[in-house]
Amino acid sequence: MNRKLRMGMIGGGKGAFIGAIHRMAATMDGAIELVCGSLSTRPEIAQESGRALFLAPDRIYNSYEEMLAQESALPDGERMDFVSIVTPNFAHLAPALLALEKGFHVVIEKPMTLTLAEARQLRQKAEETGLLVLLTHTYAGYPMVKQARHLVQSGELGKIRKVLVEYTQGWLSRLSEKEGNAQAAWRTDPARSGISGCMGDIGTHAAHLAEYVSGQKIEQVCAQLNTVLEGRALDDDGHVLLRFNEGATGVLTASQVMAGEENGLKLRIYGENGGLEWAQQEPNTLLVKWLDKPTQVLRTGGAGLSSYAAHNTRTPGGHPEGYIEAFANLYRNFALTLSARLEGTEPAPEALDFPSVQDGVRGMAFIETVVASSASSQKWTDFIVA
Amino acid sequence: MNRKLRMGMIGGGKGAFIGAIHRMAATMDGAIELVCGSLSTRPEIAQESGRALFLAPDRIYNSYEEMLAQESALPDGERMDFVSIVTPNFAHLAPALLALEKGFHVVIEKPMTLTLAEARQLRQKAEETGLLVLLTHTYAGYPMVKQARHLVQSGELGKIRKVLVEYTQGWLSRLSEKEGNAQAAWRTDPARSGISGCMGDIGTHAAHLAEYVSGQKIEQVCAQLNTVLEGRALDDDGHVLLRFNEGATGVLTASQVMAGEENGLKLRIYGENGGLEWAQQEPNTLLVKWLDKPTQVLRTGGAGLSSYAAHNTRTPGGHPEGYIEAFANLYRNFALTLSARLEGTEPAPEALDFPSVQDGVRGMAFIETVVASSASSQKWTDFIVA
Amino acid sequence: MNRKLRMGMIGGGKGAFIGAIHRMAATMDGAIELVCGSLSTRPEIAQESGRALFLAPDRIYNSYEEMLAQESALPDGERMDFVSIVTPNFAHLAPALLALEKGFHVVIEKPMTLTLAEARQLRQKAEETGLLVLLTHTYAGYPMVKQARHLVQSGELGKIRKVLVEYTQGWLSRLSEKEGNAQAAWRTDPARSGISGCMGDIGTHAAHLAEYVSGQKIEQVCAQLNTVLEGRALDDDGHVLLRFNEGATGVLTASQVMAGEENGLKLRIYGENGGLEWAQQEPNTLLVKWLDKPTQVLRTGGAGLSSYAAHNTRTPGGHPEGYIEAFANLYRNFALTLSARLEGTEPAPEALDFPSVQDGVRGMAFIETVVASSASSQKWTDFIVA
Amino acid sequence: MNRKLRMGMIGGGKGAFIGAIHRMAATMDGAIELVCGSLSTRPEIAQESGRALFLAPDRIYNSYEEMLAQESALPDGERMDFVSIVTPNFAHLAPALLALEKGFHVVIEKPMTLTLAEARQLRQKAEETGLLVLLTHTYAGYPMVKQARHLVQSGELGKIRKVLVEYTQGWLSRLSEKEGNAQAAWRTDPARSGISGCMGDIGTHAAHLAEYVSGQKIEQVCAQLNTVLEGRALDDDGHVLLRFNEGATGVLTASQVMAGEENGLKLRIYGENGGLEWAQQEPNTLLVKWLDKPTQVLRTGGAGLSSYAAHNTRTPGGHPEGYIEAFANLYRNFALTLSARLEGTEPAPEALDFPSVQDGVRGMAFIETVVASSASSQKWTDFIVA
Repeated sequence: MNRKLRMGMIGGGKGAFIGAIHRMAATMDGAIELVCGSLSTRPEIAQESGRALFLAPDRIYNSYEEMLAQESALPDGERMDFVSIVTPNFAHLAPALLALEKGFHVVIEKPMTLTLAEARQLRQKAEETGLLVLLTHTYAGYPMVKQARHLVQSGELGKIRKVLVEYTQGWLSRLSEKEGNAQAAWRTDPARSGISGCMGDIGTHAAHLAEYVSGQKIEQVCAQLNTVLEGRALDDDGHVLLRFNEGATGVLTASQVMAGEENGLKLRIYGENGGLEWAQQEPNTLLVKWLDKPTQVLRTGGAGLSSYAAHNTRTPGGHPEGYIEAFANLYRNFALTLSARLEGTEPAPEALDFPSVQDGVRGMAFIETVVASSASSQKWTDFIVA
Repeated sequence: MNRKLRMGMIGGGKGAFIGAIHRMAATMDGAIELVCGSLSTRPEIAQESGRALFLAPDRIYNSYEEMLAQESALPDGERMDFVSIVTPNFAHLAPALLALEKGFHVVIEKPMTLTLAEARQLRQKAEETGLLVLLTHTYAGYPMVKQARHLVQSGELGKIRKVLVEYTQGWLSRLSEKEGNAQAAWRTDPARSGISGCMGDIGTHAAHLAEYVSGQKIEQVCAQLNTVLEGRALDDDGHVLLRFNEGATGVLTASQVMAGEENGLKLRIYGENGGLEWAQQEPNTLLVKWLDKPTQVLRTGGAGLSSYAAHNTRTPGGHPEGYIEAFANLYRNFALTLSARLEGTEPAPEALDFPSVQDGVRGMAFIETVVASSASSQKWTDFIVA
Repeated sequence: MNRKLRMGMIGGGKGAFIGAIHRMAATMDGAIELVCGSLSTRPEIAQESGRALFLAPDRIYNSYEEMLAQESALPDGERMDFVSIVTPNFAHLAPALLALEKGFHVVIEKPMTLTLAEARQLRQKAEETGLLVLLTHTYAGYPMVKQARHLVQSGELGKIRKVLVEYTQGWLSRLSEKEGNAQAAWRTDPARSGISGCMGDIGTHAAHLAEYVSGQKIEQVCAQLNTVLEGRALDDDGHVLLRFNEGATGVLTASQVMAGEENGLKLRIYGENGGLEWAQQEPNTLLVKWLDKPTQVLRTGGAGLSSYAAHNTRTPGGHPEGYIEAFANLYRNFALTLSARLEGTEPAPEALDFPSVQDGVRGMAFIETVVASSASSQKWTDFIVA
Repeated sequence: MNRKLRMGMIGGGKGAFIGAIHRMAATMDGAIELVCGSLSTRPEIAQESGRALFLAPDRIYNSYEEMLAQESALPDGERMDFVSIVTPNFAHLAPALLALEKGFHVVIEKPMTLTLAEARQLRQKAEETGLLVLLTHTYAGYPMVKQARHLVQSGELGKIRKVLVEYTQGWLSRLSEKEGNAQAAWRTDPARSGISGCMGDIGTHAAHLAEYVSGQKIEQVCAQLNTVLEGRALDDDGHVLLRFNEGATGVLTASQVMAGEENGLKLRIYGENGGLEWAQQEPNTLLVKWLDKPTQVLRTGGAGLSSYAAHNTRTPGGHPEGYIEAFANLYRNFALTLSARLEGTEPAPEALDFPSVQDGVRGMAFIETVVASSASSQKWTDFIVA
């Protein structure tokens, strides 16, 4: 890379959770600097948040429209290169479309939009402009997830037969949205979150991970979504039986009311010869189980790993890398790809490996399909993306 | 107890797996002795097996009919007290009925019979005779399972909302039934095993455990059974969405084709305030997770346990008890209850806690219900026992 | 085997801990029956305990002298074959010597005697009589310990460089011996336990395991024994630096005051190419770590095991075997060896693998050496057995 | 904070390991920016490395002397605030002294200097100038280490009796220093590393952690250092028996030849009522074991934590934080303290909690003491810092 990339941020002001993570992840590797932001729709929060991040006063904006307009007017060596959109779901589409129109590449939180129709609209704009979109399915950034995917692709496990994925949390075990928890409030509000709560927030991560590692696509689902807490407006729990396009079957469990669970994303995949198991809370270990020989413990930074795992690792074995590093891997690959484009070079294949606008469309299709399936008395519902 | 109880065995001759386990479990605590057996339907195997167990030559029988007839003719102080039936599923009902008719108490392997109709027939005979039946759902014998059940009953977890149970094995990942594996052969043969393979063999264990610990009964299911290996005659894998009678929902996964898995029975249950997690492969640990305080690690023989856990424990904390001890707990409780009856005393409540003929009927209903559900295009199928 | 072996027991009456374990272990495999006992030095306890075990009234003895005299007078087909001595340390030697003199084989608890001199005396008697002695170093009976030993012997790990062994308990964290805990009372009493508490009770297990698996012998020690609780008469904690005869070094930690620990025996051994790790509380797993390839997880009943591990396993992988099974393996191997001798056949090499009188002598030498070293201001003390 | 702090770096050019970690850690929280560096003593490497980090060309220096001279001549709003010294041990003292003389605060890698005498010299300079020194004992930055220290201080565990600490690595299991491994080369070279290899490199971390968490100081040691690989110039393995100033005893194990181990820093501390266990490779879990109640699992971001743990945490429970975050916590606390000083405010007590020049002096005293002890035939050697 010849220079640091310049990032702007929409959302992520004081009190937000994921914006701060994005900033740490983006800047960790010294290849990206935050140069501007419209960090809140409330001007005083936007200003205060920008100052707290030591932004230049004239690049603290009070709206994304203002930011996109003014940045696009800046000279080449100064203008931001891309924008990260970290607002709640309902406020993704408009700034993303405008950013693309103004020529900015886009990083966007999942689920990508409020509806599948919106997602398709965004995909179309991305295709028209040819600009890069990074969808932050964080968990795809872990080195051991890369290794798991590689193991499946290598064929060592044989044909994949089974996919079990679960994402268990407990933080919505009470009606926190009515007790002043802002994170809970927007996530359980259809107007801001969309037609699904739990499945939109974390089920989409699980579905993405299952497809990303197994290399198979969900084709049919049979879903049971539950609103466990009375008075809540969206699902907070659910199970989905899965049928994949190359014959695997499985189940996806997602819940935010498993009291006592933290952030239990876990994937198990089995082929003819063996299986693999990865759990996000101990992300540097990948168990590879074999039908006829002892289980192996693959470790971040350890022996026997692919170039994809190595590329996404910063430290030697035994120096645990975590959630922020996984997140940073998404940004790093995006930055390497973007820099290569800006410099007219070819990125390494490992750098091209980050979730994109098409993953965002699939995520929205997942949400709409499981909600429809849950409402249906018919067992199976086709998973159609278009 | 005033004397050892005298046990006979039907099945379990040379080469069988579960018969040897029954014998170790039954005799472990010095309260039961094996006095006779019709260990095989092939006389030479029956005789050889009996001699290898040091049975008295005149109590090595060549058929169960012979054994039940001759034993019932023996004097009081010599005649066996109960019989353990450890044959394949299809050969459970006839000897069980006859044994009860002849006045012998019965220990019987799960699934209890070949069909639900047979199970009802056996239940009726047991009720008519008033004799004891122990159904060997081994996993209910673990001390930490007792503790888990106690925790739910205590109300500390609050109302139970979620039940996740899985039983994962990999030993049928190839068509072993066609390569001379006798255990595989009968388990995948409808004539000997019944209408389900995997769900009958291990799904029933999982379903029993889920109900036993949660205290709730399955009311509706939505099942997807799979025959993953082409050429196999019965299901070897499946998922079942569950609805319970007091409002909990959940999922049951059972598979014998998860290559690399051993005997992965695992239960997770969540209530309003917290959850619990138990895995059979590390059976002396019970995790209790709380919404608002740190997870606790309960341990066999450790602090903070109920009388039910303590009653089913033989050693101090840190001296691992395993599968055979869990099995022995079933026999011990059965023996304590039977001895009390023979001696006209009242058994302790802890001793009365073993799976019975009614659990066997529910198990058979589970099999028939999930097979019907799997064949149905309708999402939910009622679970009816009658 | 042509018949069951007949066992007598000295000690192990009502209220004792280890006697009951011996009985379960001995009889688990149907090859040994308990026929007589002098279970307590108090006649009423001896009688009550014998009745509770359903012993024939005329074979419930009130002293070991009486038992050994009367049993040796019984006819061949009735007389006990061997005696298990499960009394406190101080009461091991006399009955063991007498039993050997009367022609009975002996099973004896560790530490073998009260002093090294006594141990040598017992060894001499065993050698003179040619009778078998089994010293119950339980932990050597675990299948994964057998596997660990096999791995070292195979040379795969390369020359062994490091041995770390620890045995951590917490049950003496208070002065329980003064609060009516009988187990604590004799173990902390020099008259009954010998010159060491913790090192005698559990340090000897750790030292035996280290030598058994590493195949190397301790040659020099540097010990720091502590009596952490004021008012206690013997050591309850300690560390020993180790030098082995083939160049390995290491450290042995044993403590009974690590509050919160249960029975934490753990062994780690490292060679030029890799290491292994085994922990008694999860005994069915053996980690094998490699310098240049992924860690392997060996499992009881699983793939890739030696004949020694398989021989000491009763159940398929995933059906946990525990402390009692490990104990039973010692008895089973002893019984197979004894039966072979009685029948004039050759036992399998796997059957010959049980701790013997010479291990008992080394154990007593370990105790006397570490006590001497701890009292010395010199760094290294030679470990001399003679 | 009113502005970002400006950091310079000495060492850490292309090919170095720890320099890159320092940069990620320092900049992670957006409070520090790297403004200059003398990244290598070889000018072409210094220049290339500086450009790769996008430093301004005029602030890429070819020597630390040049950098310190020129930076001190810059105006107030531009001059760097502090310098991070990440060279090998032998090259710590001179730049550190000069930096302090020039008025720059200092971050310095451990072990702090080449000798104890040098360490005292540096401490004196730091005291004279009153400037801040951060010694990067990374592992003290983990939230669960903060929690462990808090638990000891709270008195809940009772008086601390036992401290077990180990740091196990395998990466020097072969003579890598002779095969072109630069990291191995300087660490095994007395001229660059000092009088100890393993104990200096990782034993010092272990000793610091033991004292930091236990709150007790090492007073006497009995050390056995080994050079396991023939032809190596320094120790690569060792054990140290420990006596602490308030009565605890323990053992420290450090090794770089435990083949198959990664970076196994592990601490266990026991008091009268319970113990705690923390392992760096799974750093977000702290086990708290109790004598009379179930073990508790404390988790980063979870329930029941102190303000010190919370202050050093960035993400909610279940989003693993790792090595780089722990490292960043040291920098963040240093930065908060430094900013407060620059702004004339009072830092929070949590911010003041980072390892200092006095910890560096103790570390060097540890090295010199254990080397002396290992050479002595006397058992105990006093640990004297002065």
